[in-house]
Amino acid sequence: MSMVDVTSKPEIFREATATGTIKLKAETVRLIKKGKIAKGDPLYTAKIAGILAAKNTSALIPLCHPLPLTNVEIETKILDGTTVQVTSTVKTKAQTGVEMEALVAVATSLLTIWDMVKQYEKDARGQYPHTFIENICVVKKVKEGVSSERKRKKTQG
Amino acid sequence: MSMVDVTSKPEIFREATATGTIKLKAETVRLIKKGKIAKGDPLYTAKIAGILAAKNTSALIPLCHPLPLTNVEIETKILDGTTVQVTSTVKTKAQTGVEMEALVAVATSLLTIWDMVKQYEKDARGQYPHTFIENICVVKKVKEGVSSERKRKKTQG
Amino acid sequence: MSMVDVTSKPEIFREATATGTIKLKAETVRLIKKGKIAKGDPLYTAKIAGILAAKNTSALIPLCHPLPLTNVEIETKILDGTTVQVTSTVKTKAQTGVEMEALVAVATSLLTIWDMVKQYEKDARGQYPHTFIENICVVKKVKEGVSSERKRKKTQG
Amino acid sequence: MSMVDVTSKPEIFREATATGTIKLKAETVRLIKKGKIAKGDPLYTAKIAGILAAKNTSALIPLCHPLPLTNVEIETKILDGTTVQVTSTVKTKAQTGVEMEALVAVATSLLTIWDMVKQYEKDARGQYPHTFIENICVVKKVKEGVSSERKRKKTQG
Amino acid sequence: MSMVDVTSKPEIFREATATGTIKLKAETVRLIKKGKIAKGDPLYTAKIAGILAAKNTSALIPLCHPLPLTNVEIETKILDGTTVQVTSTVKTKAQTGVEMEALVAVATSLLTIWDMVKQYEKDARGQYPHTFIENICVVKKVKEGVSSERKRKKTQG
Amino acid sequence: MSMVDVTSKPEIFREATATGTIKLKAETVRLIKKGKIAKGDPLYTAKIAGILAAKNTSALIPLCHPLPLTNVEIETKILDGTTVQVTSTVKTKAQTGVEMEALVAVATSLLTIWDMVKQYEKDARGQYPHTFIENICVVKKVKEGVSSERKRKKTQG
Repeated sequence: MSMVDVTSKPEIFREATATGTIKLKAETVRLIKKGKIAKGDPLYTAKIAGILAAKNTSALIPLCHPLPLTNVEIETKILDGTTVQVTSTVKTKAQTGVEMEALVAVATSLLTIWDMVKQYEKDARGQYPHTFIENICVVKKVKEGVSSERKRKKTQG
Repeated sequence: MSMVDVTSKPEIFREATATGTIKLKAETVRLIKKGKIAKGDPLYTAKIAGILAAKNTSALIPLCHPLPLTNVEIETKILDGTTVQVTSTVKTKAQTGVEMEALVAVATSLLTIWDMVKQYEKDARGQYPHTFIENICVVKKVKEGVSSERKRKKTQG
Repeated sequence: MSMVDVTSKPEIFREATATGTIKLKAETVRLIKKGKIAKGDPLYTAKIAGILAAKNTSALIPLCHPLPLTNVEIETKILDGTTVQVTSTVKTKAQTGVEMEALVAVATSLLTIWDMVKQYEKDARGQYPHTFIENICVVKKVKEGVSSERKRKKTQG
Repeated sequence: MSMVDVTSKPEIFREATATGTIKLKAETVRLIKKGKIAKGDPLYTAKIAGILAAKNTSALIPLCHPLPLTNVEIETKILDGTTVQVTSTVKTKAQTGVEMEALVAVATSLLTIWDMVKQYEKDARGQYPHTFIENICVVKKVKEGVSSERKRKKTQG
Repeated sequence: MSMVDVTSKPEIFREATATGTIKLKAETVRLIKKGKIAKGDPLYTAKIAGILAAKNTSALIPLCHPLPLTNVEIETKILDGTTVQVTSTVKTKAQTGVEMEALVAVATSLLTIWDMVKQYEKDARGQYPHTFIENICVVKKVKEGVSSERKRKKTQG
Repeated sequence: MSMVDVTSKPEIFREATATGTIKLKAETVRLIKKGKIAKGDPLYTAKIAGILAAKNTSALIPLCHPLPLTNVEIETKILDGTTVQVTSTVKTKAQTGVEMEALVAVATSLLTIWDMVKQYEKDARGQYPHTFIENICVVKKVKEGVSSERKRKKTQG
């Protein structure tokens, strides 16, 4: 078993952008907007957790290479009354791409939002009937100046 | 800012089950079924990565408590020609629940599958038009013997 | 060489509070108050970093025991025009105290504030003539309900 | 795939002792005895690395449970002119044993000794013709007061 | 105290191969061959654990430099009825060699095999009379195209 | 939220030196000098913990970049009867400076000294009336051969 051997590949500029969303109760999204979540600011906390996770990717995903990330940026956006979107962009100058780092950042940010608003999402039995994470995908990659974007399919979201 | 203070809560048996799916190209799913993925066995690798991630939850999600997990179980299932499902069950005897651990395990397993099959999912421009992770949610929780399950909504997939 | 053997000590409630301060330029403290630090909110980021670090104490300090923390709370306060204070309180039910966890949280929070405001503190030569961290100490401990506080000496602050 | 489910096992006192040896050049062992290793004290460094590694076992060995270690002790002994022995004893009160923790501590300590004396062990081509780690094994376990020891076989060294 | 200062050394291609073996009961090796180990596939799990550990070397061995590994490959081989061998090859383009990374990978893989087959190796008293890890050594190094191999001594195996 | 984007900055030689002190009881410093601290050598242990922490900086401080450190050196000095000083120098060839790495090393070393001498510093109530960490600051930076030093203010020390 082996990681992909990137020894002889050139170190070039790489960038990847990933996104994903979390569905929440309308009341929870209202509380987020008002800054009334008891545990703290879920979106800010999510961004920090996402940045830290991006840097930890090669410890989480077994065959990922350790890469010298030169930037990680995470944005959050309330898409509608029950949806929060996280977008992560990761850059490096390395021998392989950073889409896994961008995806790890998005997933960890979304999970952190869930953790921050748990108390508002749980029903009486401790279940989360309204909460789910969806549409985690890579939306853009840049390789040495050449950029391309994913044409997202209707059915995804 | 504070974690939730669970100091005075009793240590009781807790269990949580989470699931999620990854959409892949039909050809990739065929290769998985045949055991022909060049980097290794994506489902087995995903399970190990998920178990390790569950144990690492309190380092990934800022306000999660460190918990003495007594079991983590991860199962994968090819749901249909383009969908792989991951299900994770986590157990502990602790002062707070383990749904975040189950969710972290599922998300990390799904991301690991993505990493293992990257080369088959990428198009000529390096994009992933067919790949996305969806429907990560908590499907069951048990608290000191009392079990409850989420009624999953039709619209989720 | 050995950790202190706490095998036969009872698991009792423990709490520790630590504090420390960072000296900054007056202009930097003004920017913090106005929410104008370019990299983000230094105090909020510091709190999250401190909570994560508290949970990581036994990996940072060689002879610390891994402890099941039941709460970590971090507060920040602008003491005067050039001083920010961080206070951390950690709780557990364990066989040994949590003062190292509280100290690690404070130190990491203070270092994070430094990192967040670096650009405003550096002079033309890249030096930090005004920035230093001081007075990191334990101010309170509670052991099974019995609380005691440190009488801080004048000379420290 | 699953960790062993220890949910219903009682938390009892557990102890495990493991040992292992590293073979070095006679000249290297002489330098260790004289305290002349340029990088520092290899035996002391090894002990610290071993203690830290023991606490990190559940992150290194995929199916190990996270356990609240109450003691880790590491001793080193120069057995003869070319052999250094590391012995590690780990204690806990938990639902499963700590032999993997003791073994991880021994292996990491031995690897650290290797790293500390690398420059004396390498030949002109950068090879290590004399260096190897051997006989890593569990020599003793205690379970709730009942102790047992391994009868080591002659052939092992 | 200091790491070796490699600041002024050139970044060149480096490769190191290490091996080691674990002795098991004949019955355990038979179960491995048949794919009948209850906890999962010990050899596959060992490979993943070894790759993850190689990437974690500078956190485990105090004076190791963090290196941008470009490949880690791990192979396992059943040498005879009671012996499993692990071989690890690590590559980088860096200022210092990767023998410690290769050794850490081998040691962690061997320890993981032990953990996966524990239940078959233990005797009635919980001891491991037949299990030990031996002959962990560096067998090959390559430095900028110049390869050399260790002449293994008879007495080692 | 974003790390500082250093993608287009050149990789140049960087060095940073930080210091800090810990105040202890005179009796504790005497015990350190005599090598009589029961838990081990606090200064040696502190150096190892500091070096390990420096390499872990980007996991501790949320917006720090992962950097390929080429050297970490830590020195300790008993300044007077109640003061121990730690000095850390970190080097890299990278796109951003290493002052945070040097500061993290110093802080972790000082915290480790605290942990190693805890039993001598505690009073009857478990408080630390004499122990505090102070004057953590950056004293020197080098950037591509250009060195500058901080003019330390009288009031700091």
